[in-house]
Amino acid sequence: MKRVLITGPTGFIGRHCLDRLLAEPCEIHAVSRTSRPSSDSRVHWCAADLREPDEAARLIRTIRPSHLLHLAWEATPRVYSASPENLRWLEAGVAMLTAFGEAGGARFVGAGTSAEYEPGEDPCAEDLTPIRPSTIYGKCKAACGLAAQAAAQHYGFGAAWGRVFLPYGPGDPPARLVPTVIAAIEENRPVQMTHGRQLRDFIYVPDAADLLVRLLFSSETGAFNIGTGLSTTIRSVVERIADRIGGRDLLRFGAIEPPAGEPPALVADMSKVRTRLGWTAPTAIEAGLDEILAGSLRRPDP
Amino acid sequence: MKRVLITGPTGFIGRHCLDRLLAEPCEIHAVSRTSRPSSDSRVHWCAADLREPDEAARLIRTIRPSHLLHLAWEATPRVYSASPENLRWLEAGVAMLTAFGEAGGARFVGAGTSAEYEPGEDPCAEDLTPIRPSTIYGKCKAACGLAAQAAAQHYGFGAAWGRVFLPYGPGDPPARLVPTVIAAIEENRPVQMTHGRQLRDFIYVPDAADLLVRLLFSSETGAFNIGTGLSTTIRSVVERIADRIGGRDLLRFGAIEPPAGEPPALVADMSKVRTRLGWTAPTAIEAGLDEILAGSLRRPDP
Repeated sequence: MKRVLITGPTGFIGRHCLDRLLAEPCEIHAVSRTSRPSSDSRVHWCAADLREPDEAARLIRTIRPSHLLHLAWEATPRVYSASPENLRWLEAGVAMLTAFGEAGGARFVGAGTSAEYEPGEDPCAEDLTPIRPSTIYGKCKAACGLAAQAAAQHYGFGAAWGRVFLPYGPGDPPARLVPTVIAAIEENRPVQMTHGRQLRDFIYVPDAADLLVRLLFSSETGAFNIGTGLSTTIRSVVERIADRIGGRDLLRFGAIEPPAGEPPALVADMSKVRTRLGWTAPTAIEAGLDEILAGSLRRPDP
Repeated sequence: MKRVLITGPTGFIGRHCLDRLLAEPCEIHAVSRTSRPSSDSRVHWCAADLREPDEAARLIRTIRPSHLLHLAWEATPRVYSASPENLRWLEAGVAMLTAFGEAGGARFVGAGTSAEYEPGEDPCAEDLTPIRPSTIYGKCKAACGLAAQAAAQHYGFGAAWGRVFLPYGPGDPPARLVPTVIAAIEENRPVQMTHGRQLRDFIYVPDAADLLVRLLFSSETGAFNIGTGLSTTIRSVVERIADRIGGRDLLRFGAIEPPAGEPPALVADMSKVRTRLGWTAPTAIEAGLDEILAGSLRRPDP
């Protein structure tokens, strides 16, 4: 029986990965800082702060997972990108990779980020686009991806690195794009936006989780984009939300300046994923937004 | 007064860096696994194994260096390239970088490697050639270089990363190319070689040390090649040694296969170093080899 350890199972992507893992015949261990009551008796929860020295190694030695899905990183919206906590997560990641190898682990999948790439006009291809991250987050993720390759090479386990583009969907933290726009419109406040012409690869978070879990149970190694391959402007996403729930008049494009160095385009080339895994993102952005808005509209009034 | 901490001061490059540091007005702290008697009273030696959890951070907190020259890595000839110890050194490096930032450090220089680059026909340029290391050593070094950039970005210290090409010279460990060839010829044994057509950038180790120390006391940040910009075949180096000490008849080119994946060419583009630091390697390969051979010939007979 496969024994999966998932880190970051209470995060935005992690919760969907945990749900997705429940569809697989495997033993599931989930580690988070504070132990959570399990909603499903199949999930064994354990409490550990992986950033504490020796905690990651101790946990791996105790659980001895055959499969490790490593999603735990600093992810607080608007903060994560420049946070020095990423360095502690990198340290924890390297410690965990070594311990995983020493404990005879078979498969590792880690969550990287599109911020590892040097952005350009062309879609980002895993093995062609230069890795030249500008943020602390991107640098630490890229470093962890290299460490995963190094550990896999020595210990002989299979390692895949999923570079996640722009996930959205159920459980999106309130400070991120889609929930912010919905909340402002629902409260009849102006939506202060940049010009909105940035091209992004929005991936419905259950689809991202599906791809990560498929990678975990595949034998594929190396980097893989977690995206759709489709470019969508930020503006069109915001406008679609406004059109669906009413509030076009509240949109203020150009009201704020984009952050310095924000890439005009960041879209995945999905040909490697299609070829190697035969996978294409099933949920179009329109359908994904409709799902969220249906959920949002279903919310009882306070 | 600048307070320098050097790690790896007893290594091949480290010993030359320590010598070179003595020419600078600074307080020098040198850390190695076992404390060494100082040959110069200006060097404060301390004993620590930086790979032990919390050792690196503890040392930084105690010494509080303004300048950190980080050279400590696994470097055993023929072993280092695939050794998992590199993962422990990566972990130690990340811990040290965080502690250095927290202690208010000003300048960091770390020793990277030419093995970080994807080798090709063109000389390797710091900001153009793809970083696509194939060895565990190259991956862990590249990861540490990213971590250095990330830490520098958060804590505001200046960080430069020196990608070292092929150092040779006084103190070269016996199992490396030049000492191996000299020893075989002196003992009248055949010199078993590959075809020898590999192009490499040989840098005289005191020159490499000079450039690393100059980087440490500069305000330059980012990656810098530690090389000469000149390509030399392995064969021509071996032949020059044989011609100087007699032993051409002992050379057996083609006797062994090159290791799988060994790059045909790995040469530095030194234009960034020339432009930013006004530095060119002073010692040509011929002069460097002559220096070593003079030293070798000066050795008393047993």
